Amino acid sequence: MGEFDYIAWLRARTPPSQRIRVGPGDDCAVLETMPNRPWLVTTDMLLEGSHFVLADVGPRRVGRKAMAVNLSDIAAMGGRPIAAFASVALPRGNTEVIAKELYLGMLDMAAPFHTDIAGGDTNTWAGGLVISVTVLGEPGPQGPILRKGAKPGDWLFVTGPLGGSILGKHLDFTPRVREGLLLQQHAKLHAMIDISDGLAADAFHLCEESGCGAVLFADAIPISDAAHQILDGTSPLVHALSDGEDFELAFAVDPFAGEHLLNTQPLPGITLAHVGVFVEEAALFLEKQGVRRRIEPRGYAHPFGK
Amino acid sequence: MGEFDYIAWLRARTPPSQRIRVGPGDDCAVLETMPNRPWLVTTDMLLEGSHFVLADVGPRRVGRKAMAVNLSDIAAMGGRPIAAFASVALPRGNTEVIAKELYLGMLDMAAPFHTDIAGGDTNTWAGGLVISVTVLGEPGPQGPILRKGAKPGDWLFVTGPLGGSILGKHLDFTPRVREGLLLQQHAKLHAMIDISDGLAADAFHLCEESGCGAVLFADAIPISDAAHQILDGTSPLVHALSDGEDFELAFAVDPFAGEHLLNTQPLPGITLAHVGVFVEEAALFLEKQGVRRRIEPRGYAHPFGK
Repeated sequence: MGEFDYIAWLRARTPPSQRIRVGPGDDCAVLETMPNRPWLVTTDMLLEGSHFVLADVGPRRVGRKAMAVNLSDIAAMGGRPIAAFASVALPRGNTEVIAKELYLGMLDMAAPFHTDIAGGDTNTWAGGLVISVTVLGEPGPQGPILRKGAKPGDWLFVTGPLGGSILGKHLDFTPRVREGLLLQQHAKLHAMIDISDGLAADAFHLCEESGCGAVLFADAIPISDAAHQILDGTSPLVHALSDGEDFELAFAVDPFAGEHLLNTQPLPGITLAHVGVFVEEAALFLEKQGVRRRIEPRGYAHPFGK
Repeated sequence: MGEFDYIAWLRARTPPSQRIRVGPGDDCAVLETMPNRPWLVTTDMLLEGSHFVLADVGPRRVGRKAMAVNLSDIAAMGGRPIAAFASVALPRGNTEVIAKELYLGMLDMAAPFHTDIAGGDTNTWAGGLVISVTVLGEPGPQGPILRKGAKPGDWLFVTGPLGGSILGKHLDFTPRVREGLLLQQHAKLHAMIDISDGLAADAFHLCEESGCGAVLFADAIPISDAAHQILDGTSPLVHALSDGEDFELAFAVDPFAGEHLLNTQPLPGITLAHVGVFVEEAALFLEKQGVRRRIEPRGYAHPFGK
């Protein structure tokens, strides 16, 4: 199967969509805009050996994750994904199977979110598998929710238990797109991020952009079963604070809205946890049994890594 | 320099733009739409060893080409590029120099076309250099010019001499963005493509999408000096027909508009060449000294390559 057969195979799987006037096969895709709606755009690349071991996880899960991390970035802005573009570099040998499985994995993840794969670029080479996905979306009812906007006194929430995602969740998580949209019906969101670098690091990203600091409440942070299962001498709390790739949402609301969210718990199947408070002093603190100490916002961030 | 320093370095080089409400550094970029204008989206990936030899060309020219091939796809739709997103996988060692040179190369190419680099993803790994660029643009005054739309009787034009781009043009070409826009002020464009696979192959792409065929006029095809310089036993004409990566535009207009373009030559510095005519029969022909024979639309298209 050559390039053009593969494009034909893709086109057969890309039904006409209301928002995609022209899909794969021309020089560009053509996407319809909505009046007065900006576009959200995000892009993420996954690399064999660096982000995944192909022989262990298989191409289908790689395709799923490559799509999911991008959908999670749209969720982090409170947006709705619309269209995805995928460029791949395929290792030689077994190329056709890998190409199709990758695509089916992307489709597994994109379809439930009504996101169409509208274009891409497919290559073979002597190197490892590379997949780069770009997703376009539109903002939710409150417009784009940035990292900037948290105010001292605001409460910090997370959408689920944290830590130990390396045991499996980092591959098989569900991006919090529905939750990011649904939250906007129940509270004014001041700032939001998805937890890809770890709670401490990502809470600090909110602080840096918002020009403030935050106190995390050690006893309120929901810790995943996986964080308890990793017996590496690091406490489950530290895993929850510093492990990356949980892809839960972390967001800031004022205390009144925070009380409302805690009392109503409006997200089906999810317990929102109030894990901290934003403060004036531009630093990150951990409070445990009444004692507040400054912590470093370290997480999963190797040089040039993501 | 770590990931966050690099993002800071990028942000300092991304001035606020009218169309980019939020640039690098948040979960997504936010782009302003124009009323009733769809978006054009294209993506292309370049791979070390497959598309370029890094030691020979250096990272700056790689960055330029990665941007230019995407701008050429926007040009092929008659569009105007607005924003670019770049994901890169950097080989370990000398990472910071390569990262900055790549970015400066992209900027060299994007800036003259008023295109902003609005986001991306930067990684290091043990493999070769990979760069994947996605460009968003808006259509020109005639709307998106597709590959579909050529009619039997239409004339086929190209914007410049063809063949032998491997001697240098494939790296240092100027994408025909201005020409694609300017042409729309002088003629109704029925269909258009950029010549990346070779004139024969790309003319046939127009035919396939338009449901017709084409006759190419051997004596009218402009042949580049480079095609004459390659002494590999293949004639300069065959190079002009089948070499890839010239990135000139090939387009269809009706004969009346064609005569007007030939007589007025409205593109500064460019001689438009009338190289063929579209016909009913769905095949590709070459006409030489009054003799018309069928040719295979072969060009530069290795399996899964682009």
